[in-house]
Amino acid sequence: MEPSTKERLIEAGMAMLLEHGYNHLGIQELLAATSVPKGSFYHHFESKEDFALQVIDRYMVGVHAGLDACLGDQAVAPLRRVRRFFEGTREAYRQEGYLGCLLGGLGQELSGVNAVFRRRIEECFQEIAVRIAACLQEAIDRGELSRDTDAQQLANLLVDCWEGAALRTRLLRDPAPLQAMLDFYFQSMAPAKTTARRTAGRAARRPPRGSTRRTGGSR
Amino acid sequence: MEPSTKERLIEAGMAMLLEHGYNHLGIQELLAATSVPKGSFYHHFESKEDFALQVIDRYMVGVHAGLDACLGDQAVAPLRRVRRFFEGTREAYRQEGYLGCLLGGLGQELSGVNAVFRRRIEECFQEIAVRIAACLQEAIDRGELSRDTDAQQLANLLVDCWEGAALRTRLLRDPAPLQAMLDFYFQSMAPAKTTARRTAGRAARRPPRGSTRRTGGSR
Repeated sequence: MEPSTKERLIEAGMAMLLEHGYNHLGIQELLAATSVPKGSFYHHFESKEDFALQVIDRYMVGVHAGLDACLGDQAVAPLRRVRRFFEGTREAYRQEGYLGCLLGGLGQELSGVNAVFRRRIEECFQEIAVRIAACLQEAIDRGELSRDTDAQQLANLLVDCWEGAALRTRLLRDPAPLQAMLDFYFQSMAPAKTTARRTAGRAARRPPRGSTRRTGGSR
Repeated sequence: MEPSTKERLIEAGMAMLLEHGYNHLGIQELLAATSVPKGSFYHHFESKEDFALQVIDRYMVGVHAGLDACLGDQAVAPLRRVRRFFEGTREAYRQEGYLGCLLGGLGQELSGVNAVFRRRIEECFQEIAVRIAACLQEAIDRGELSRDTDAQQLANLLVDCWEGAALRTRLLRDPAPLQAMLDFYFQSMAPAKTTARRTAGRAARRPPRGSTRRTGGSR
């Protein structure tokens, strides 16, 4: 089935918003790219703001589908499921050319000038963190994490650190910051019995010779 | 001594760029706020882009001064110095109303459309990470961190996670994400001999009753 006009506008607009941001999204450019007449755009969307908010809604449908697929897989240990979700997100970033996260981009650009976007994007992060927290709680219940772990705080932390790594990925067009962040986070959360055999700074050990590493000086 | 006209433009522009972003920075609004005539602005700056780049340069002068003050203090243990730098940055954010980081904001907004900003902001993060890495190397040399720690990678990680926490702080107008990130990072780097006595998820333990905590559900 052919995607509807509205669907085509949202798909094309999502890619344009990710790359260019909100202020640089030209409705004329979007209409030209999709061969949609202006009247049709305003039939589906009240305004550019309404359009961008509907793009965010659609983006979140995809995020929840990814969360469902990864976090609901009972055959996989809970911490592994959480990591898989973020690895899947990194794969999506790769397909887009490592432009980072739509939510982080719009959140930075607009949250100082537009309270509607500020609230909506914070809600999105909370929605994601609540789902991650539920899976971390499973990790606690199954003994993967200590009983006194605060799953919600640990989930918020993961979402936040991911967003920072996504920004750096956007600047560098390189996934290394995402990988380094996930390694540090999951290794820092290793269960007590293995933690005892590790030493400080273990998430940032010098990699073996010949492996890819990311240093400030070599870029 | 009175600040020069150029100085006043940069100071006012820095606050406006942090709050509103680049696209929403109106030169007319800046001139009105500083009572500077338009001709004078274009005497000092070639364009809005040149202005914003000079604001970034000035911002980095402040960052390096903060790094000098915190990281150069030989009386303090190296890891403590690094933490103090970020705590000082958090205090600066407080004074600005928790609007996050200028570099992260402009980096997200502009790096998809403007290669000059993209490169300049990545350079800024690298400059900061290189200085942090030098202090982490001191921590390694003094035995605060394991010898096989990769100081540069750990510094990049800290800068990246900080930026993500700064975005969340901007959305929430709340410093809690910054605090949670620093706690997790520095507790995860604890030296081997204390790590062995800790258990998993130790950076996200449930706080004592009555303390402030940040959860997705309660906001």
